[in-house]
Amino acid sequence: MAENFADRLLAAIKAKGTPTCVGIDPLYARLPAEIVEQKDLNDETDSESALDAVLEFCRRVIKIVAPIVPAVKINSAFFERYYWEGIEGYFDLIQEAAQSDLIVIGDCKRGDIGSTAELYAKSALSEPDFADLEDLVGPDAVTVSTYFGIDGVKPFIDVAREDQKGVFLLVRTSNPSAAELQTAKLESGLTVAEHVAQQVSGWSQGEGLIGNSGYSAVGAVVAPTNPDEIVRLRGMMPHCLFLVPGYGAQGGSKEDIIPCFKSDGTGALITASRSVIYAYEDMKYIERFTSEWDKCIEQAAKDFVAEVNSVVPT
Amino acid sequence: MAENFADRLLAAIKAKGTPTCVGIDPLYARLPAEIVEQKDLNDETDSESALDAVLEFCRRVIKIVAPIVPAVKINSAFFERYYWEGIEGYFDLIQEAAQSDLIVIGDCKRGDIGSTAELYAKSALSEPDFADLEDLVGPDAVTVSTYFGIDGVKPFIDVAREDQKGVFLLVRTSNPSAAELQTAKLESGLTVAEHVAQQVSGWSQGEGLIGNSGYSAVGAVVAPTNPDEIVRLRGMMPHCLFLVPGYGAQGGSKEDIIPCFKSDGTGALITASRSVIYAYEDMKYIERFTSEWDKCIEQAAKDFVAEVNSVVPT
Repeated sequence: MAENFADRLLAAIKAKGTPTCVGIDPLYARLPAEIVEQKDLNDETDSESALDAVLEFCRRVIKIVAPIVPAVKINSAFFERYYWEGIEGYFDLIQEAAQSDLIVIGDCKRGDIGSTAELYAKSALSEPDFADLEDLVGPDAVTVSTYFGIDGVKPFIDVAREDQKGVFLLVRTSNPSAAELQTAKLESGLTVAEHVAQQVSGWSQGEGLIGNSGYSAVGAVVAPTNPDEIVRLRGMMPHCLFLVPGYGAQGGSKEDIIPCFKSDGTGALITASRSVIYAYEDMKYIERFTSEWDKCIEQAAKDFVAEVNSVVPT
Repeated sequence: MAENFADRLLAAIKAKGTPTCVGIDPLYARLPAEIVEQKDLNDETDSESALDAVLEFCRRVIKIVAPIVPAVKINSAFFERYYWEGIEGYFDLIQEAAQSDLIVIGDCKRGDIGSTAELYAKSALSEPDFADLEDLVGPDAVTVSTYFGIDGVKPFIDVAREDQKGVFLLVRTSNPSAAELQTAKLESGLTVAEHVAQQVSGWSQGEGLIGNSGYSAVGAVVAPTNPDEIVRLRGMMPHCLFLVPGYGAQGGSKEDIIPCFKSDGTGALITASRSVIYAYEDMKYIERFTSEWDKCIEQAAKDFVAEVNSVVPT
């Protein structure tokens, strides 16, 4: 792993022919019947049983999507739900995804003051530095909170530089109430999100961060809100890859993501989570594959890729 | 635990006679020699050995400070450092602190979009809802990120309401670069932190959140920056208890914390972390207690309490 994260991600996007990422957000209550009906996996009041079911589902999802997309985003909240055993499962999945030749983004949105952020950067992004955990693999990149300013972010950027990893800094999120703070206008004329974007852009140009591709190991989380806003954010962060959440289930459509890309079709990784991993709840796929939930997911991943590819500028 | 969190915290403050909290931020490299020289605890390259040393230290700290202060704040970053075993240790410490009759604040600063924040709220704040974890105890309150607006915060507030727990929402942090974003001026005339404070104040007045004391289960993290700023934030969030970090090692002094309180001496919980738990590195205490590290911590906790109490308005 001696290559800049942005270069690695772009190479993976090129190899698979699509700038897409599947988000792994597993909820026990939505798992396929075939999984939860198995012995030892059918007791949601037991954390181990429920977690084992969740992990089996995730392993299957990773295998299904690995030939189709270049990256997966694993959201730690869904594993922390199962306390410490869940965290162990989260790291197991990172390893499985890495072995399936996927770029792995750990979606953990950590943040704290600098000296504390160092600890988070170590556990959430570094390769483990304990002899007894030498087989453990960290993710290729993580999402990080920006509310603390540079000293909460710098420990993650330092790990990104030293271990050839990546960070995606929260700039503009996809949830309905995000605008309460993120689009508030500053005296400078910028919105709060644009102000953060300006900071992130500066940080992305730090020494040793920009790869041969011209993109930095420091990227940004930018949800596809409205085109004008995204065009401005794209222009403000020329060296940042955008991790774009919210495609599909969270309401983003294929037109919304166009301004996340530069005119050469680079610059964004589009993530769909629930619309892909729960495709077996969607009548469109049920009609075609009935209860073959894995085929529903496979088809939904392919449809997602085709939809995104149909709008990526070329 | 059938009482509003703010009322419980205020009762604990009254019982111990001081609005103080010790922050548990344990770093292996700074542990007392007596602990790390013990067999099985003296290998920092082994995660279990290092974690066991950290946990033994934390247990001792909790026992030392329990008679002196009403609350402890346990920072999850320092335990996540040891991966899943660290998280198990973090929950063990919550239990030990609760059994020592301390109010326990889990400092985890989680945040995400609403549906994901629900998962974080479950694992970080709720009482566990799995039969096999029925003995597990959650903290009394947690710190929560505000960048997502209300839908990232609401799941935590809902748990606070239902389980009689508390949340401290990030408004103004203590780190040097916090000002990059938090004091940026909005067109409205408010700073970003004040804008967040206004939101937090509104949320704190939601149904079922305000206790008999007039304070809400929804509090705010407010660092003692400059007096004018704190006076404004205190005025803007009349129902919020302030969790005040940064006393001692992070540079806060006793004068700085005065405006965190209302004129009746209520409204703030002052936290000191490294200045107390590493007091055995401080010449002032070494001269008096030489290598009796536990006595250094005990005295530093008492000095911290006396200092804070000397400035609390009465």
